[in-house]
Amino acid sequence: MSTMKAAIYVEPGRIEIVDKPIPAVGPLDALMRITTTTICGTDVHILKGEYPVARGLTVGHEPVGVIEKLGSSVTGYREGQRVIAGAITPSGWSNACMCGQASQDGAGTPHGWKSMGGWKFGNTIDGCQAEYVLVPDAMANLAPVPDGLTDEQVLMCPDIMSTGFSGAESAGIRIGDMVAVFAQGPIGLCATAGAKLSGAALVIGVDRLPGRLQMSATMGADHMVDSSKQDPVEEILRLTGGRGVDVAIEALGTQATFEAALRVLRPGGTLSSLGVYSTDLTIPLGAFAAGLGDHRIITTLCPGGKERMRRLMAVIESGRVDLGAMVTHRFKLDDIEAAYELFAHQRDGVLKVALTP
Amino acid sequence: MSTMKAAIYVEPGRIEIVDKPIPAVGPLDALMRITTTTICGTDVHILKGEYPVARGLTVGHEPVGVIEKLGSSVTGYREGQRVIAGAITPSGWSNACMCGQASQDGAGTPHGWKSMGGWKFGNTIDGCQAEYVLVPDAMANLAPVPDGLTDEQVLMCPDIMSTGFSGAESAGIRIGDMVAVFAQGPIGLCATAGAKLSGAALVIGVDRLPGRLQMSATMGADHMVDSSKQDPVEEILRLTGGRGVDVAIEALGTQATFEAALRVLRPGGTLSSLGVYSTDLTIPLGAFAAGLGDHRIITTLCPGGKERMRRLMAVIESGRVDLGAMVTHRFKLDDIEAAYELFAHQRDGVLKVALTP
Amino acid sequence: MSTMKAAIYVEPGRIEIVDKPIPAVGPLDALMRITTTTICGTDVHILKGEYPVARGLTVGHEPVGVIEKLGSSVTGYREGQRVIAGAITPSGWSNACMCGQASQDGAGTPHGWKSMGGWKFGNTIDGCQAEYVLVPDAMANLAPVPDGLTDEQVLMCPDIMSTGFSGAESAGIRIGDMVAVFAQGPIGLCATAGAKLSGAALVIGVDRLPGRLQMSATMGADHMVDSSKQDPVEEILRLTGGRGVDVAIEALGTQATFEAALRVLRPGGTLSSLGVYSTDLTIPLGAFAAGLGDHRIITTLCPGGKERMRRLMAVIESGRVDLGAMVTHRFKLDDIEAAYELFAHQRDGVLKVALTP
Amino acid sequence: MSTMKAAIYVEPGRIEIVDKPIPAVGPLDALMRITTTTICGTDVHILKGEYPVARGLTVGHEPVGVIEKLGSSVTGYREGQRVIAGAITPSGWSNACMCGQASQDGAGTPHGWKSMGGWKFGNTIDGCQAEYVLVPDAMANLAPVPDGLTDEQVLMCPDIMSTGFSGAESAGIRIGDMVAVFAQGPIGLCATAGAKLSGAALVIGVDRLPGRLQMSATMGADHMVDSSKQDPVEEILRLTGGRGVDVAIEALGTQATFEAALRVLRPGGTLSSLGVYSTDLTIPLGAFAAGLGDHRIITTLCPGGKERMRRLMAVIESGRVDLGAMVTHRFKLDDIEAAYELFAHQRDGVLKVALTP
Repeated sequence: MSTMKAAIYVEPGRIEIVDKPIPAVGPLDALMRITTTTICGTDVHILKGEYPVARGLTVGHEPVGVIEKLGSSVTGYREGQRVIAGAITPSGWSNACMCGQASQDGAGTPHGWKSMGGWKFGNTIDGCQAEYVLVPDAMANLAPVPDGLTDEQVLMCPDIMSTGFSGAESAGIRIGDMVAVFAQGPIGLCATAGAKLSGAALVIGVDRLPGRLQMSATMGADHMVDSSKQDPVEEILRLTGGRGVDVAIEALGTQATFEAALRVLRPGGTLSSLGVYSTDLTIPLGAFAAGLGDHRIITTLCPGGKERMRRLMAVIESGRVDLGAMVTHRFKLDDIEAAYELFAHQRDGVLKVALTP
Repeated sequence: MSTMKAAIYVEPGRIEIVDKPIPAVGPLDALMRITTTTICGTDVHILKGEYPVARGLTVGHEPVGVIEKLGSSVTGYREGQRVIAGAITPSGWSNACMCGQASQDGAGTPHGWKSMGGWKFGNTIDGCQAEYVLVPDAMANLAPVPDGLTDEQVLMCPDIMSTGFSGAESAGIRIGDMVAVFAQGPIGLCATAGAKLSGAALVIGVDRLPGRLQMSATMGADHMVDSSKQDPVEEILRLTGGRGVDVAIEALGTQATFEAALRVLRPGGTLSSLGVYSTDLTIPLGAFAAGLGDHRIITTLCPGGKERMRRLMAVIESGRVDLGAMVTHRFKLDDIEAAYELFAHQRDGVLKVALTP
Repeated sequence: MSTMKAAIYVEPGRIEIVDKPIPAVGPLDALMRITTTTICGTDVHILKGEYPVARGLTVGHEPVGVIEKLGSSVTGYREGQRVIAGAITPSGWSNACMCGQASQDGAGTPHGWKSMGGWKFGNTIDGCQAEYVLVPDAMANLAPVPDGLTDEQVLMCPDIMSTGFSGAESAGIRIGDMVAVFAQGPIGLCATAGAKLSGAALVIGVDRLPGRLQMSATMGADHMVDSSKQDPVEEILRLTGGRGVDVAIEALGTQATFEAALRVLRPGGTLSSLGVYSTDLTIPLGAFAAGLGDHRIITTLCPGGKERMRRLMAVIESGRVDLGAMVTHRFKLDDIEAAYELFAHQRDGVLKVALTP
Repeated sequence: MSTMKAAIYVEPGRIEIVDKPIPAVGPLDALMRITTTTICGTDVHILKGEYPVARGLTVGHEPVGVIEKLGSSVTGYREGQRVIAGAITPSGWSNACMCGQASQDGAGTPHGWKSMGGWKFGNTIDGCQAEYVLVPDAMANLAPVPDGLTDEQVLMCPDIMSTGFSGAESAGIRIGDMVAVFAQGPIGLCATAGAKLSGAALVIGVDRLPGRLQMSATMGADHMVDSSKQDPVEEILRLTGGRGVDVAIEALGTQATFEAALRVLRPGGTLSSLGVYSTDLTIPLGAFAAGLGDHRIITTLCPGGKERMRRLMAVIESGRVDLGAMVTHRFKLDDIEAAYELFAHQRDGVLKVALTP
C-alpha cells in the first residue's frame, strides 16, 4: 500500500482524484490517515483559479483522522490515536509563533513572519482531501479527539469554528455587547455562535438566504436581517436605537459587507474582519468619521495549533454549541467532484459536506 | 469688563478678532482666563472652510490659563488656580465616558455615543483663542498645572501631545518594537516621542522637510527617512531587514501615508491612525494580505479629561520629553491673523505658535 | 409627606425602621422613590457591627425605583421614570473614574483615589432600605429600566450580578477555559453564570449546601463539588485531569476558599477574588510556586455607574440568564427586621429577599 | 576533546569544577560552546541547598557563546554562529507555550503546564557554567547576537534583563505611571530600567546599600529611598502626595518587601512580583482593603525563547539602556568557586560577575 487517493488541483475549474505516493515521514512529522474531511470556501477559490496554488497539489485543510505513523523525533503521541490538526499548522518555534502571531508563521523566513505563512495544508504543502496527509511539526499540531466526540462533531474545529470564533475573540466582545454578523455562511454562523458564547446581549445575523437566516437563529442570533429585503445598515441602526453595534463581524469578503459593517458601528466600535477579499477595499470618509471615530478594524486568520484545537473541542464537549447541524451533505472521497459541484454552487441548502475516504 | 476679545470664524478664509460678551457661568462650568493658547492644523481646516463650524464661533481648543470663576456646583478648585483643559472635554458621566470612550462622548444623545462628540471647544461651543473660555463639566476637565512648569511647557498637552502619544498607546507598543511614524509635523513628532517613551527599540521618522526630520531626531527617532528623496516603503523594509515594523503610525491624513503605513507593517502588525482624512481611503488588497494578515487598523481621537492632562504634565515634569522646542513662534492674540498666515503656509520652519492675550 | 420610613443602623445587632426627613435634592442629585430593594451579605456585616458605619445611617445599596425629583442641573431624565442605580455610585469626573477605576472613586480626595470610595450608599451616605434614597451624581448613576423587565428581574443588577459577573470579567475568561467558583451564595452563583456567559467550557461550582449546589447547576455549572463531602482541591484536580483550572473565582471571603482557589490553578492561572475578607490572608509558598508560577491574583469591587447597569439589564433582557429565581423570599419594608433575621441565618434556603416599601 | 569542564552541584555549600563528557547532540538540540556566562542569585540558593537540584548537575542558566554543533533536524542556523539562549527554554510546541505561558512549559506532561517547567538549564538538565551546554529545542531558543554587541553587553539578556523588564511589562505600566521598585539588586535594577523604558513618569528605587541606590539612579530612578534610614512606605506615600503608586515591583522575595509593595499601591494599583520567596506570605487585611481595592498581584517567571532574546538585544543595540555597567567583576571558569564566594556574600560592591571558560 504505497499509494493513496488524493484530490489535486489540476487547472482552473478542475480538481480531481488521482493516485499519489503516500508521503515519507520526516523526524518532526506525523502521517495521519484521514477518516473525515470537508470542503472550504477557500477551496472553491482554488478550484476556480482565483487563489493560485501549484498544479498537482493535494487540496484541503480540515483533517480528522488517526495517527498512522510518527516521525522519529515526535513524542507524546501513539500510533492509532484519533486526532485532528488545525487548518493553520504553526511550527511553534518561529519568531512569529513566539510573538503570539502563530498564524503568520513563516518559519523558514529570516524573521519568521510571513503573511498567511501558517497556512500550509493545501496551500504550500499537500493537503488532506486524500487518504493520508503529512502533518508538519506534529507536536505543535496534533490534538487528540476526546472519546465520545464523533468525527462530524469535531469536523468544524480545524477551520470554520476556529475562524468564526476568532471573529468574536479578536473583537474583544464583552458581556452585554451588541454585535452584528454580516453573512451567515459556515464562518458567519460560527461567528454568530462565538459572539453569543462571548456574552453578547444582542446578536444580529445578516444574510440573504432564508435557510441561512434560519440556521442563524439556531446558532444564537437574536435578530435576523434579510439583506435581500431590507437595508441592513438601516435595520441594524433601528434595532440598536440609533446607537450602532459595539462589534460588527464581516464574514464574506466583499466591499458591500465590509462597508456596511463599518456603517453600523457605534463610535469607538470594532470591525472584526474574517472574509477573504478579492479586490481593494474602500473606507468611506463619513463612515470612518474622517479617522476620528476611535474605530478599530481587526483582521484575523484562522488560529491553529493543538492547544486551540483542544479548547474548541472542549467547547463542543461541553455542549455549549452544536455545530453538527452544519453538516448537510455527505460524500465519499471518490465522489469529491460532485461534492465540489454542489458546494461551489450552494445547491440544495448546503452548508458543509462531510467527505470520507 | 463684560466683553472680551475673541477670534471667530467669519467665513471661509476669514478668522478675525472681535469683541464678544464674556460668557455667563453655569453651575457645572468654569470660566478660564487664557494666558497662552495655540493654533492647530484643524483650525486651519476650519479657516479654509474645509471643516464646517458655525459662523461667529470662537475657534481654538488648546487652553492654558487661570480659573476666573467657578460654577455654583463645582468643588475641588479655587479661583486664581493655574489650569489647563484638554482639547476634548468629556462630561465624565455619559455612557460613552463610562464605557472608556470619553472622546466620543455625545453626552446629550440617547446613548451617549457620538463621533467626535467630546470635541466641543471651537467645534460645537466657543473655543479658546480668546481672552476667556467657558469650560463645560469643569470638574472633569480642569487640570491644575504643577508649580515650576511654564505655560509653554504645558501648551502641547491639550491636543498635540495627547494625540501624538495616543498613537503609540493605542497601538500597544511593546518594549523592543520597531515603529515607523509617517509625517513629522507637531503630532507626528509627539508620536515619535511617544513611541520612544513606550520602549520601541527602533523608531523611524518620515517626512519631506529637512527641519522636521531634524526635529524628529531630537524627539527620539533612530532613523529619519526623507520621503522627497527615497521611497519610504522600500527604505523602511530595508531598515527592518525585510521584516516590516510592528507598528506604523499615520500622522498626516492622506491616502499616500495611510497606504505606505500599511505596506511597511509586518504580518500581524498595527497601523495606528491619527490623521484627519479628507477623502475616502483605499486599502490595497495585497498590502492587506486579502484580509488574512492579522493586521489591525486603529484610529484614535485625542484623549482629554483632567486625568489625562495630569499624566501628560507628569511626563513633562519628569523631564522624559521636552516639547518646549516645538514652540517656534510667538504672537499676541491681537495678531492672530498673522499667526494663522504663517502657520497655515508652514512658513519660516514653524512648528507651533504661542498666542498670548 | 416630608418624612419617610428608613431602616437605620442603631448599634451592633440592631437595624430598625424609623421615620426620617425625606432628603433635600442638591443640583447634581436625584431623589428616587424605592419600589423594590434587597439585603446584601455586607448589610449583615454592618448589622453585626463587623463593618463599621455611622449610627443612624440608613443601610442598603441595591435600589430599584422611580425618579421622584431631579436636581436643578440634572438633564436627560424625567420624573416618574423607572430606574435603578448601582451599589457603587461613581461621580464620573474624578481622576479615579477617568483612569478606569470608578469603583475606587474618592471624588473629593486630593487625587480622587480611595479604597472603596465609590461605595457610598449605606456606607458613607444614606442608603436605600427606605422609602426614598438620594442618588448622588445622578447623571452618572441613574439607569432607565427597559419596559418589560420587572423590579425583581433587575434587582440583582446593582450589586450581586455586577459583582459576580466582574469575577469572570476581571479574570479575562476566554472561550474554552476551565473555571472553578468557590462558594455558591448569591455572588458565587452570579460568578458561575458570568463564567458560563464568558465562554468557559467547564464551570465547577463549590459549596456545602445542597440547595446552593442545585442552584449552581441552574446557573450554568457543569460540575458541582460538595465541599462538606469531598476535598474540593482534590476533586477539581481530578476533574481537570491533574492540570488545574485556568481561573478560580473566590466568592466567600475566607482563608480556606482563597487558599483552595490558589491550589486548583494551573501554572499561569488567575485567581479572581470577590469575597470580603475579615482576616489577614496567607499565601502558601508551594501553592504560589514560590512566586514563579505566573499566577495572577485579581480583586474586584462591584462595578457601578449607569452604563454598567444598562449592560447588565441588556443581558437580562436577552434572556441569556435568569436571576429571578434567586429571589426566594418577599417582605414589606416594615418587616425588614424579620427579613434580616432570616437572611443573616441563611434560614429556609434563602438566597435573596425582595423588600417593598 | 570528548570531555569538558563544568561546575556541578556536589552538596549543600559545594559547587565545584569537574570534568564531564561533552554531551551528545539529539536531533532537536544544539551544542553551544560557552564564551561568557554569569552567576544568578538563584544559583546561590542552589549552592546553599535552599533550592534542591540533583547532585552532579551542572549549574548555571545564562549562556552566551557559539554554536558548536546542530542537531540533525535543526534548520536556520549555522555552526560557528554567535548566539545566546534564554534561561527559560520553552519548547514552542507544548500546550502551555501555545497558550502564551511559555515559562510554565512542562512539555512532556499530559497537558503541558508545569510550574517553572520552562526553567531547565541548571535545574532539570545540565546548565551552562561549563565549557559546553546542550540547548534543547534549539530552533525555539537560539538567538543570533547582532554584530557589534559584545558578550558582556548581552550577558544580562538570558535572565536578569528579561526578568526585570517583565516586572514592568506584566504590570502593564502606562505612560505617566508612578512606580516603586523594591530592592535594587540586578533584577530590581533591570526592573527600574524597564519601568522607565515603559514610560513611567516617576520611578522610585528602594534598597539599603548605597552602591545599589547609586546604580538605581543610573538605571533611571527619579528618587532613591534608603530603607535602612527611612520607612519606605511612608516615604513613597509622601513622594506621591499620599496617593500611592500605580505599580509596585517586588524584586527581592521577602515578606517585608512584598508587604511594603502592597502598602504603597493606590487603590486599583498593581503589585508585580519577581522575587523568589522562601516562606509563606501574609497579605495584611488593611493593605488589601479587605479584598475590595481592585488590586492586582501578578507574578512573572523570566520569559525566554529566541524572540524574547531578539527583542532584548534590539533594546541593547538601540542604546536605550546600558546594562554593561552591571558587570562589576570578571573570573575564569576555573575560578568559579571564588566567584561564588564573592557573589554569595555581596562583597566588594558586586552586582554581576562575568565568567569565561
